[in-house]
Amino acid sequence: MQLGMVGLGRMGANIVRRLMHGGHECVVFDTNPDSVKNLAAEGATGAESLEDFVGKLTGPKVVWVMIPASITGKVVDQVAALLGDADIIIDGGNSNYRDDVRRAKKLSERGIHYVDVGTSGGVFGLERGYCLMAGGSDYAFDTIEPLLKTIAPGTGEIDRTPGRNGELAPEEQGYLHCGPSGAGHFVKMVHNGIEYGIMAAFAEGLNILDNADAGLRETEHSAEIAPLEEPEYYQFDIDTPKVAELWRRGSVISSWLLDLTAAALNSNPNLDGLAGRVSDSGEGRWTVKAAVDVGVPAPVLAASLFERFASRDNDHFANQVLSAMRQQFGGHRELPSGDSLESGANRDHAE
Amino acid sequence: MQLGMVGLGRMGANIVRRLMHGGHECVVFDTNPDSVKNLAAEGATGAESLEDFVGKLTGPKVVWVMIPASITGKVVDQVAALLGDADIIIDGGNSNYRDDVRRAKKLSERGIHYVDVGTSGGVFGLERGYCLMAGGSDYAFDTIEPLLKTIAPGTGEIDRTPGRNGELAPEEQGYLHCGPSGAGHFVKMVHNGIEYGIMAAFAEGLNILDNADAGLRETEHSAEIAPLEEPEYYQFDIDTPKVAELWRRGSVISSWLLDLTAAALNSNPNLDGLAGRVSDSGEGRWTVKAAVDVGVPAPVLAASLFERFASRDNDHFANQVLSAMRQQFGGHRELPSGDSLESGANRDHAE
Amino acid sequence: MQLGMVGLGRMGANIVRRLMHGGHECVVFDTNPDSVKNLAAEGATGAESLEDFVGKLTGPKVVWVMIPASITGKVVDQVAALLGDADIIIDGGNSNYRDDVRRAKKLSERGIHYVDVGTSGGVFGLERGYCLMAGGSDYAFDTIEPLLKTIAPGTGEIDRTPGRNGELAPEEQGYLHCGPSGAGHFVKMVHNGIEYGIMAAFAEGLNILDNADAGLRETEHSAEIAPLEEPEYYQFDIDTPKVAELWRRGSVISSWLLDLTAAALNSNPNLDGLAGRVSDSGEGRWTVKAAVDVGVPAPVLAASLFERFASRDNDHFANQVLSAMRQQFGGHRELPSGDSLESGANRDHAE
Amino acid sequence: MQLGMVGLGRMGANIVRRLMHGGHECVVFDTNPDSVKNLAAEGATGAESLEDFVGKLTGPKVVWVMIPASITGKVVDQVAALLGDADIIIDGGNSNYRDDVRRAKKLSERGIHYVDVGTSGGVFGLERGYCLMAGGSDYAFDTIEPLLKTIAPGTGEIDRTPGRNGELAPEEQGYLHCGPSGAGHFVKMVHNGIEYGIMAAFAEGLNILDNADAGLRETEHSAEIAPLEEPEYYQFDIDTPKVAELWRRGSVISSWLLDLTAAALNSNPNLDGLAGRVSDSGEGRWTVKAAVDVGVPAPVLAASLFERFASRDNDHFANQVLSAMRQQFGGHRELPSGDSLESGANRDHAE
Repeated sequence: MQLGMVGLGRMGANIVRRLMHGGHECVVFDTNPDSVKNLAAEGATGAESLEDFVGKLTGPKVVWVMIPASITGKVVDQVAALLGDADIIIDGGNSNYRDDVRRAKKLSERGIHYVDVGTSGGVFGLERGYCLMAGGSDYAFDTIEPLLKTIAPGTGEIDRTPGRNGELAPEEQGYLHCGPSGAGHFVKMVHNGIEYGIMAAFAEGLNILDNADAGLRETEHSAEIAPLEEPEYYQFDIDTPKVAELWRRGSVISSWLLDLTAAALNSNPNLDGLAGRVSDSGEGRWTVKAAVDVGVPAPVLAASLFERFASRDNDHFANQVLSAMRQQFGGHRELPSGDSLESGANRDHAE
Repeated sequence: MQLGMVGLGRMGANIVRRLMHGGHECVVFDTNPDSVKNLAAEGATGAESLEDFVGKLTGPKVVWVMIPASITGKVVDQVAALLGDADIIIDGGNSNYRDDVRRAKKLSERGIHYVDVGTSGGVFGLERGYCLMAGGSDYAFDTIEPLLKTIAPGTGEIDRTPGRNGELAPEEQGYLHCGPSGAGHFVKMVHNGIEYGIMAAFAEGLNILDNADAGLRETEHSAEIAPLEEPEYYQFDIDTPKVAELWRRGSVISSWLLDLTAAALNSNPNLDGLAGRVSDSGEGRWTVKAAVDVGVPAPVLAASLFERFASRDNDHFANQVLSAMRQQFGGHRELPSGDSLESGANRDHAE
Repeated sequence: MQLGMVGLGRMGANIVRRLMHGGHECVVFDTNPDSVKNLAAEGATGAESLEDFVGKLTGPKVVWVMIPASITGKVVDQVAALLGDADIIIDGGNSNYRDDVRRAKKLSERGIHYVDVGTSGGVFGLERGYCLMAGGSDYAFDTIEPLLKTIAPGTGEIDRTPGRNGELAPEEQGYLHCGPSGAGHFVKMVHNGIEYGIMAAFAEGLNILDNADAGLRETEHSAEIAPLEEPEYYQFDIDTPKVAELWRRGSVISSWLLDLTAAALNSNPNLDGLAGRVSDSGEGRWTVKAAVDVGVPAPVLAASLFERFASRDNDHFANQVLSAMRQQFGGHRELPSGDSLESGANRDHAE
Repeated sequence: MQLGMVGLGRMGANIVRRLMHGGHECVVFDTNPDSVKNLAAEGATGAESLEDFVGKLTGPKVVWVMIPASITGKVVDQVAALLGDADIIIDGGNSNYRDDVRRAKKLSERGIHYVDVGTSGGVFGLERGYCLMAGGSDYAFDTIEPLLKTIAPGTGEIDRTPGRNGELAPEEQGYLHCGPSGAGHFVKMVHNGIEYGIMAAFAEGLNILDNADAGLRETEHSAEIAPLEEPEYYQFDIDTPKVAELWRRGSVISSWLLDLTAAALNSNPNLDGLAGRVSDSGEGRWTVKAAVDVGVPAPVLAASLFERFASRDNDHFANQVLSAMRQQFGGHRELPSGDSLESGANRDHAE
């Protein structure tokens, strides 16, 4: 069937390629004419403007918008102005699901169907396919299902879940109608929240391994830091790149994120050049706020988000406050120079 | 080569089977004679007592002890009393690595080499092989390497990590010499700590999905509970079994633990019959204590452990204290029956 | 000066009493005529309707609204419809500061000044005074400052902070102009967020003390639960009510919340009759969401909120998922009945 | 009565002063002769060696050891060698309660009673008195009770807890027999664990206030960082020193730690010169490990400890691992230079 794609960055372009490879017809537009030209050379129908783009679509028109969340709203409005009853707009970007709920409601007044599709798969998606989480009306989902089926990975080499048999369900092929508009990005949001938690679990665990030699090192144990107790139990010089590789084979925590970790550590064992200032996109934040809204505890997901904030030194003022308190109640940092052997006791007792 | 196995539970017996299948010779012993008989019927050499068992081994004797951690110390002592210089004892159970450090030191005085082997793989290990994390002397590791190679999964169908080429390293075949005695169980301990974190990330995320319909339900919003704000954004009735299945296909969080989750939810979508009182074995605890010892933050791993404690109501007294405090400062629960419209304000202001 | 009070619950009525005691004139209204009658008997000017109420005020009219957050918006609208340029509305309830920002902006179009006043002090406020956090224009704050000064505690018996001297600042008397509209409730919100954290710190610590006798008790240590290691270090039968009382005298953690805890434990040492299902009002939630919005780590405040959620069993599905996963990978709960001594090893290795 | 004090640092010396002020007789020793000389000039009986010191004590001899935990064991052994049946050694330092349990058991073989006294009060203790948590035999506690009563603060100006009446209990005077040897330091340990949690609650809350102006500032919002959503709600320039002062007056979170915070912020509003690298002594760590041992959730106490670890950059390797993973799955940081408008979508979808 036919699809129109607005936004030909890596993701948009690769989705178009998968669709064309699967026999679908694609009309494409991007503000960058070169991007259009490149895909046209591969068989897509290029367009020179949004008007030209919509004009080349046949009804019901299906437009996939694949652009940064910050400008999605504006572009969806522009596209919608050119569409009408029974047409479909798909937002495949990383929008906040709340925007979907609002947009879908507004567009439905004009008969336009809005489908949000959360998309996971990264740079490997062109080859492997993308995991697709869709929200929207039954009509819209049914209409675009052939497209989703092509973009999704299919079953691949992944074993069928025990107990499932008969015809393959959509979720076994890598796409799912999660519910009404917003449900797709909601599920994608939680997916990314979980991803933060898993990444943090690996990072914390590897950090412990990396410090398993604490008993071998000169540790900071000034009067202000507790010395390592029982150093005889921390004498291990663990090769973390090898351990990450090992766990890929038969262990309970084998996973795609572990594959990536093993690859990263193998190519750069000391992680040279990485400052460890970890970015976060919106999904982790939205997940925590959703948990708070519905009253569900999410300490692991929240902790993984807060660690990223702290990695960017956003905990600085809080830490200064702690130091300031300690200075107040114990005269910490201000030990008298000629103190006798009890100076440590003085310090500690202050607390 | 030859191995003696003490302890023929499911794990011990399956390891023996993998070894025999790989051409090794196994002498076996268990306090349960039937277990010995069964494996003897499959080709192993059975023994009737520990003395008989050790007598059937040829030097350097290699004994794998595969029994619960709580009795490992006693059995290792019994076995060691029958061994001598250059012989090797392997603890394949889930001992605390601190016990390994102590035992190895003690046994080394008599020339006996002690190897701790952390083993992951679960009920699927017989077929797939076990991921093996070993700690001990170079001599001991080199001696038993042929056994480890056979027990481990090998490369299987798992893609080689980009950048790795040439001869396969041990870790690519699923076993690794992690360091001196204790290092194997230390790495296994952290492995399980990570596992707790990953499991919690999935559980929390699925719980959020399960409550995405909060705006559709009658929620508890007595005077004492904050009502759901913006219920229009929580109108999703998500099918969590389908979502778990979906994420197995092409998503960033695909993993073996997700495979298990999808299988569990598929076979029992509402998780009927599960009380949600979650056990913990020692490794999660030891991991958090190790993090505290070496001064490494592990909020995600700790949170996942504490959630399990709370699932068993070990937070009960703490919660009672909180309720008691609230009663004190606000007269909560004791609102006067004839209160006017301000009763809520009264309540809230109390805090 | 003159103040009009709408809402005569315990908080509203007590504020009126403090004001009259301080020489101010109060006009009062409540939907419950008895509440009006009672305060009129104490010297206030009663009103029979909002129109009557506003009619009895002289310009610039100052109206304090002290009602539950859920109906504040509606009542503020009703009052505002009767006010005009340079009049002032005070919201002394527990509104979300975001509502303040919106309301202030809307009312300013008609020249009405909106002041949000976060109020802390609880049931003791009538006697001790209330801590007041105000947000609004300079004009409005300056106008109502005499009222705030009277409602606030003043310096009381509290030592002056070292380094402060000269004339008493407003904050030393218990009230503060925190910034524009919304700033008052923002500061109050964070105040309550901190309160949750402090309460949780006490609750967790007392729970550890309450379990310091773990080595004396028969503990759950089935095959599924890790047994207590080193029980010799957990032989203490701590009297928590006495400890709470003790810490009030000279310790670093002495605080009003500790005073309340000591009182609660003294009156009910075993906390009989408390189910430990801990409510939360909105402020703790809003605080965590604000932290997430501005990218500031708040693991302690978030953990204290999540503990309350879990106390109400909102973690149930998550815990069921964990149990279901464990069942999958280890056959936990399903140990073969005739298992030999290795059954424990089987179990543990599964992970 | 008579007390011998070993260790004349600030704490030891001030305790001696309080005791002498209360009419007790003190024999004192320190490796620094000047410390001995100073206290002798104030009325104490100085000693030139441990032998001299013990020789000047009359039976039953009571020796208070007040030195850093790291050398307490050695000095207790030296003192004990000079004592005998029915004599008493008090450890007033910050020892791990586990050491107490072991030492008490060993000393009891020779009839020596060992009392551990956790001491809180800081630099203000000389004037105010110290909160004392004691562990030991009934005989030892009864013997030294007159000393403890003098060192403790007494009731001071603190209101009696409602419901308490009649004769003052020891805990109302600031000292308590918490249980057998080890119980005193156990209670002190948990006290400090709670202190960490309270301090963190204040620090996190003040950090949120300090960032309430996020909507006014140029924030980091490169392609890699989520921009601030709804900046209109973060327009507050809060004066945190004033807020801390305000909360001291009538608010629910008034506390001694808040007093200190207000003092610190008043003297140094921007906390200039504080790097925010927060030390931790052992008690916070031991508290978390005790919670883990007895299976009690302590997420707030653990989070407050982990924040301190992170403030000293002990999270560095973990953060590098996170950055490395993100580089792998999304080509983060490596966006193609000529990317079209979809680059952001590419980035986000990678996750």
